[in-house]
Amino acid sequence: MSDLDRVLAAVDADLDASLERLFDFLRIPSISTDRAYAAECRRAGQWLADDLAGLGLTAQLNDTPGHPVVTGMSNIGAGKRVLFYGHYDVQPVDPLDLWENPPFEPKIVKGPNGVKRIVARGSSDDKGQVMTFVEACRAWLKVTGKLPVDVTILVEGEEETGGGNLPPFLVANKDRLAADIALVCDTSMWNATTPAITVSLRGMMHDEIVVTCANRDLHSGYYGGAAANPLHVLAKIIGAVHGEDGRITIPGFYDGVVEPPDEAKAQWAKLGLTPESFLGPIGLSQPIGEKGRSLVEMTTTRPTFEVNGMWGGYIGEGSKTVIPSIATAKITCRLVAGQDPAHVRDAVRAFVRARLPVDATVEFLSGEGSPAVAVSHDNPDLAKATMALKDEWGTPAVVIGAGGSIPIVGDFKKTLGQDTLLVGFALDDDRIHSPNEKYDLASFHKGIRSWVRILAALAA
Amino acid sequence: MSDLDRVLAAVDADLDASLERLFDFLRIPSISTDRAYAAECRRAGQWLADDLAGLGLTAQLNDTPGHPVVTGMSNIGAGKRVLFYGHYDVQPVDPLDLWENPPFEPKIVKGPNGVKRIVARGSSDDKGQVMTFVEACRAWLKVTGKLPVDVTILVEGEEETGGGNLPPFLVANKDRLAADIALVCDTSMWNATTPAITVSLRGMMHDEIVVTCANRDLHSGYYGGAAANPLHVLAKIIGAVHGEDGRITIPGFYDGVVEPPDEAKAQWAKLGLTPESFLGPIGLSQPIGEKGRSLVEMTTTRPTFEVNGMWGGYIGEGSKTVIPSIATAKITCRLVAGQDPAHVRDAVRAFVRARLPVDATVEFLSGEGSPAVAVSHDNPDLAKATMALKDEWGTPAVVIGAGGSIPIVGDFKKTLGQDTLLVGFALDDDRIHSPNEKYDLASFHKGIRSWVRILAALAA
Repeated sequence: MSDLDRVLAAVDADLDASLERLFDFLRIPSISTDRAYAAECRRAGQWLADDLAGLGLTAQLNDTPGHPVVTGMSNIGAGKRVLFYGHYDVQPVDPLDLWENPPFEPKIVKGPNGVKRIVARGSSDDKGQVMTFVEACRAWLKVTGKLPVDVTILVEGEEETGGGNLPPFLVANKDRLAADIALVCDTSMWNATTPAITVSLRGMMHDEIVVTCANRDLHSGYYGGAAANPLHVLAKIIGAVHGEDGRITIPGFYDGVVEPPDEAKAQWAKLGLTPESFLGPIGLSQPIGEKGRSLVEMTTTRPTFEVNGMWGGYIGEGSKTVIPSIATAKITCRLVAGQDPAHVRDAVRAFVRARLPVDATVEFLSGEGSPAVAVSHDNPDLAKATMALKDEWGTPAVVIGAGGSIPIVGDFKKTLGQDTLLVGFALDDDRIHSPNEKYDLASFHKGIRSWVRILAALAA
Repeated sequence: MSDLDRVLAAVDADLDASLERLFDFLRIPSISTDRAYAAECRRAGQWLADDLAGLGLTAQLNDTPGHPVVTGMSNIGAGKRVLFYGHYDVQPVDPLDLWENPPFEPKIVKGPNGVKRIVARGSSDDKGQVMTFVEACRAWLKVTGKLPVDVTILVEGEEETGGGNLPPFLVANKDRLAADIALVCDTSMWNATTPAITVSLRGMMHDEIVVTCANRDLHSGYYGGAAANPLHVLAKIIGAVHGEDGRITIPGFYDGVVEPPDEAKAQWAKLGLTPESFLGPIGLSQPIGEKGRSLVEMTTTRPTFEVNGMWGGYIGEGSKTVIPSIATAKITCRLVAGQDPAHVRDAVRAFVRARLPVDATVEFLSGEGSPAVAVSHDNPDLAKATMALKDEWGTPAVVIGAGGSIPIVGDFKKTLGQDTLLVGFALDDDRIHSPNEKYDLASFHKGIRSWVRILAALAA
């Protein structure tokens, strides 16, 4: 029997004890957005630091201006080191009355599909996922006394708040956190039987466009027909952003956009993501993205221009016959590999300015952004992790991008120089951020086994 | 000394007391569009009914399904009767922080031009104007014990809402409200030294356009690029309404529009209204109306399409990466002689529906309207009123159309068979519907004197 098989057997044998440890972790109400739970956040961090110390790692609870950061490092001298990232903080639990079970009293129940699930706040996002990695390390250490690769475990307590204290922590601990690659366990599988590795995350540029015409709100009877209306001006601009073909018409917007390899596109085509399955549940039937692009491309490898909020004039009850002075739009652009946030910002602003009629002025109130992050499809560790997951699940892992932004992954690249593979075992129906959050028992058990295999594969 | 001169002298002597009464009226925050102020609307109506009763008129606060209607009638047996109309309700006061003085604490201040002004919400639109007529009646009654003509005073509380309860009130009280001509005090002078009689008013059609795409707000990372955004849809529609030539592109929108006679256009050309004089004070330099039309035409004899308010998505502080489910626009169209409000409503709605992409649905929440109205230039009472105004101001009154809508004037014609002369003493810089609304002290004082003269002239 190989070391790997003996470690996997140990994972199976130790599952009940693993669950007990996870339940202890889940019982700590570490709600980071609510100051009243600050001590509980610290307690959760301390619990994890103690657990890592128990594994023989050099573990520490590192203070920050916000909630503390847990670090735990092995010193096997394996020649290769991975940085594992997760978070111990959880979302608030309101509305509490929609929970079938108290959110911090974890329980195993059978779901409507007959499958066993761990129900508790944080079971999926992210304590359950964090513990898949910790338990994998525990099994390797217990069975072999060492790890296939050295690990640096970094678990923060402000992921749900955007607290902003982790990036400076990375800067201050740059040397200590050096590693060959970062691994994140905070994402989902493709479906309950198909694992996924997320290799790209879209970046973002956000801005606020404020168009002013007259120096005050005007009576639409008196001035109507003669005076410029900034809502008309802004609507005309926003209305011109997307062409009939779904493309964004802003000159220079697509500059530098990287086209994914054909093999990746071919794999995505086989995933069978359809408008019915993806858009049906939200009441839509047709994607509005660029003609000729797949849904996967539209939502992960193509950039967007989105108006997140727009307002001007009278928005109360009833009617007010006013020509407003000011109209505002909050926009975000999701960015993909190859796009420079500052270049996109400048392109958007030039587009707006070029369309301003006489007597209309514009102010831009933000313009900040972060670029997309992407791992090359040729990355050798990606190939190794993909094989390891196939060994566990019997199905090749889907290698895909995510449409959202996980800003810290950009910091791993920027500050630590590390590429990141995002490997998670959550499922779309885990109800993260909602009442009755759950994590399938299989996600937890096979998640641990997956990490056991990935750690071995990365060492090869 | 003639009766007329004695009454005018009494107006001058009683000015301070007249102002005190007006201030009491202005202190009541009778905002008709906001349900929270319903009791205040009633209180304003009651205050006025009590004041009219104090004059010896048969006064009544008449309930409606909305805000009550004030009526006050003299019974001199003068052989001629005028119906005077105004409104006691006022516009909302937001944005409150732009008011230099609380809007319902009236005050006399010196304007930047050194002229004394009454500052308060409703000072000009329309409580100040209503009280010019009431004070004129008070002076006639005080000095002579009677009125030159019988008066029926009709003051409603839903002018700013288009509440719709006054037209059925007119129908139900048709006989009681019979008169030879209607007089309205809710318009402006041509300038601070030139009185004006308005003989046409634009009508209005208002609607609320609600566009829905997904069945809930969406995460713009996960769905962005694939899911339809109703703000984009609505912006594209609004952005298509006006052509580059300033014309409204909605098919059928201009159906039936009456072209004014060339003589009228020639008169208006002599008024010397320029972009500098008309738009300069509000910070604009160029009219945005139809190419080839004068400013007078754009604002009085040509129809408009105006977005008065538009909103959707996240409009709070900071950024929220949401694709909203719903976007809304409140619109009004100013209508001119010859246009049918229902036809315009249908044209607007057809235009919107024709531009809805797949997965977007629309609801229209209002669609009510009233046509424009116009009085013949040959009306004999128009000549009398013109002379009376010349006697007071030393300058012939300008006879013109107004760009605003006073829908009830159409009902006076339709239901009561009465033509209407609109004689108002507001000024262009009164900031009606805006923060720091004001009414010049001279508007109030000479307005009262003007009505004293007009009442005498109409009796002749």
